[in-house]
Amino acid sequence: MELLKQRILEEATTLPGDVLNTDSFMSHQVDVALMDAIGEEFFRLFCGVRPDKILTVESFGIPAAMATARCFGVPCIVARKQQTGRVLEDVYAAHVFSYVHKQDYQVLVSRLYLERGSRILVVDDFLSSGNALGGLLEIVAKAGAQLCGVGIVIEKAFQHGGDELRSRGVNLKSLCIIEGIEGGLTFREQPH
Amino acid sequence: MELLKQRILEEATTLPGDVLNTDSFMSHQVDVALMDAIGEEFFRLFCGVRPDKILTVESFGIPAAMATARCFGVPCIVARKQQTGRVLEDVYAAHVFSYVHKQDYQVLVSRLYLERGSRILVVDDFLSSGNALGGLLEIVAKAGAQLCGVGIVIEKAFQHGGDELRSRGVNLKSLCIIEGIEGGLTFREQPH
Repeated sequence: MELLKQRILEEATTLPGDVLNTDSFMSHQVDVALMDAIGEEFFRLFCGVRPDKILTVESFGIPAAMATARCFGVPCIVARKQQTGRVLEDVYAAHVFSYVHKQDYQVLVSRLYLERGSRILVVDDFLSSGNALGGLLEIVAKAGAQLCGVGIVIEKAFQHGGDELRSRGVNLKSLCIIEGIEGGLTFREQPH
Repeated sequence: MELLKQRILEEATTLPGDVLNTDSFMSHQVDVALMDAIGEEFFRLFCGVRPDKILTVESFGIPAAMATARCFGVPCIVARKQQTGRVLEDVYAAHVFSYVHKQDYQVLVSRLYLERGSRILVVDDFLSSGNALGGLLEIVAKAGAQLCGVGIVIEKAFQHGGDELRSRGVNLKSLCIIEGIEGGLTFREQPH
């Protein structure tokens, strides 16, 4: 997605630990027009799979997921994060290890909102090692729902989560794929 | 806002501790069309104050704030929450006590995104005692920005945060004001 790539080149900064800081337009400050364009692009890429719901995880997956849900006219489910602890009986839960924060946490979705057999499109802002996304996919499977696609705004290919999911047959599409950060950003050319 | 009031009456549930659970349409599962209607209503109520930016706090203020930012065509700033600890030098910070979680936390906004003199409209999902909102207003003041209004989706009047802010002259408008929860929901009639 050229608009997004240009924005990354103009505004994103890099931080130690291969972190790409997109705070100025994607998370801490959100450019809503860009999010709308991202939602429209995910609609174009996934309109064939007809999702019943969009699933993301708090907090910074919410803007892109909401914009996507608007285009499809479906609800947006926001999985909650909490420190590992007691799991309520009325939720689907998955454990995730965060490399950034060096600790375990859980992602939780109420059983009320993930219906068995429903078609779920997962949307998130970043895909690195794939741990957080793996938690969402585990929850979709536990609910007996059907994963019809995964839309990622920025994939960091050098952390390999994306290619691992593709090799497992997941219908994953990323709007920008970054091959490397050190020594200057490099992007993977994409067919779509 | 009649549409919102009807939705609360149809779907919201009450939990111990005067908690109003609106998970099915406002937070855990988000009805994007309702959020768009909320954004349009905030635009109608605040179009005279011409905000430069919308400010909210993660996670569940994001949907209403994004919808509002879209109507105004301005960026949406999402303040971060973190456990009390080291505060970085490049942020404005405020301490908040959470009655729900019975602990202190901080709300943080980067100095990069809150410009001195800029006109800020704060949007959040709930207003109860006003502690969390107070943290946001403290940050706006620290930045030397100008608070031009506060838009709240649901105000719980029996926890008094809203009327206290009004008595201090804050330009606060709530789309639904709930006077009581126990023994059945009661709403405050509003002029707008």
